[in-house]
Amino acid sequence: MRTLSGKELAAAVRERVRAEAAARQPRLAVVVATADEASLWYVRSIAKAAAGVGIACDVVELGPHAAPETIAATLAGLSADPGVHGVMLQTPLPPGASAQELAAAIDPAKDVDGAAPLSLGRLAAGLPAFAPATAAAVLALLDHHGVELAGRRAVVVGRSTVVGKPLAHLLLDRHATVTVCHSRTRDLAAVTSQAEVLVVAAGRAGLIGAGHVAPGAVVIDVGTNPTAGGGLTGDVDLAAVAPVAGALTPVPGGVGPVTTALLLEHTVRAAGA
Amino acid sequence: MRTLSGKELAAAVRERVRAEAAARQPRLAVVVATADEASLWYVRSIAKAAAGVGIACDVVELGPHAAPETIAATLAGLSADPGVHGVMLQTPLPPGASAQELAAAIDPAKDVDGAAPLSLGRLAAGLPAFAPATAAAVLALLDHHGVELAGRRAVVVGRSTVVGKPLAHLLLDRHATVTVCHSRTRDLAAVTSQAEVLVVAAGRAGLIGAGHVAPGAVVIDVGTNPTAGGGLTGDVDLAAVAPVAGALTPVPGGVGPVTTALLLEHTVRAAGA
Repeated sequence: MRTLSGKELAAAVRERVRAEAAARQPRLAVVVATADEASLWYVRSIAKAAAGVGIACDVVELGPHAAPETIAATLAGLSADPGVHGVMLQTPLPPGASAQELAAAIDPAKDVDGAAPLSLGRLAAGLPAFAPATAAAVLALLDHHGVELAGRRAVVVGRSTVVGKPLAHLLLDRHATVTVCHSRTRDLAAVTSQAEVLVVAAGRAGLIGAGHVAPGAVVIDVGTNPTAGGGLTGDVDLAAVAPVAGALTPVPGGVGPVTTALLLEHTVRAAGA
Repeated sequence: MRTLSGKELAAAVRERVRAEAAARQPRLAVVVATADEASLWYVRSIAKAAAGVGIACDVVELGPHAAPETIAATLAGLSADPGVHGVMLQTPLPPGASAQELAAAIDPAKDVDGAAPLSLGRLAAGLPAFAPATAAAVLALLDHHGVELAGRRAVVVGRSTVVGKPLAHLLLDRHATVTVCHSRTRDLAAVTSQAEVLVVAAGRAGLIGAGHVAPGAVVIDVGTNPTAGGGLTGDVDLAAVAPVAGALTPVPGGVGPVTTALLLEHTVRAAGA
């Protein structure tokens, strides 16, 4: 089984970004309205990665009780600020706040994590738009490792607005035959085992076992579930699937680092010409 | 085999629309920039149906050589006109004009045929939006005939922005496991014959034969291909598929009349409160 590492690709993207950032002085603003530890850890990792490639990163902390109106006004203000090139809204949000509704306040030209409904619609319609960084990272990883998509059967597990749905459109654009599964899918293993390319973004550790994977299939694990030991584990049961799959992304070190690198690349692009 | 007629549903929708239109004086504007006969015939049929339920319908003919800028300006003008409640851009368009790009000029609140990228994005994100009337008609027909969707395997043939893609989102929202096929799909029959609900929107007469359909499957034929005799035929080979399918929509008389009725219903809704 091939291990589809994301580290080399992420490093190459960061190198490209660093070269372009020098001339453009890009600035990314991340709006946070949560006390969730995993989320805050991720935001710190973005800020650190941004600093590493010469992108300024403002973390705007509104606290876990911020009103939706406050969040929307903050996003609108950052969108209107000519000194800010990328705007991102971190989840989770306070109860009653909808990420999809609020993200509409982000200028699509600065929507570097593809969260606004207009960005998703443009993506689906085949018009230029920023894709959510995670969905873009899956495509970039497949390309980097030379996985062919045209005419092949791709199955996506998970129908979220940030991964499953935009990814389905990206795969369709590349002429794959695309199936989207989710928690209500009957006999998940019967569907996923038809995949030549299987992408799992369900957020459930160990969901995918040997019986879910066709021999030789390419498996992309988008899951990042916390382990008791303070680490991360994917949605794929690595020990069970490794003997069956043809190729598999590790967690951590697969989709994750590429996601962060592409978020930074989107920011540099948003700051460009 | 059950025939899933759309005529009764269309009549019921028109009845509902007529009752609501009386109080609201809705007005629909259809922008046309083509000399295509089938398209002009369809627009006349919309205007006639609108008149029948008390909706004013303006057909704005820009001619087959209209510049994209002219079309966009017309759509923006109608969107800004408080006397117009629904705005629709008819295809085909002159060479060089993109329906997706131009439809962005339609105010989403008046985008009764769900053509704007923002409408598609909101639909995909699960936010309130007008779905394209054809995609909405497929769902309405399935509901009208009591076809269950949750947990079932649905296959959509065709990945257009006006039918296949929005329909995939509507079916996902209803908890179906959804596969989208297209012209680049390898072994189409192998994929479609796994469908419990098969929706065909490929625009190719006779594409779907007996070998494409699982015994007992529900088949929705969105195709409207002109015949030599001046009639219409679907994408499904009726004679071949009828003995296999459990239920099948006729063409004409299936999705078509429901589509027109829902376009009018969207217009009345756009004119409401």
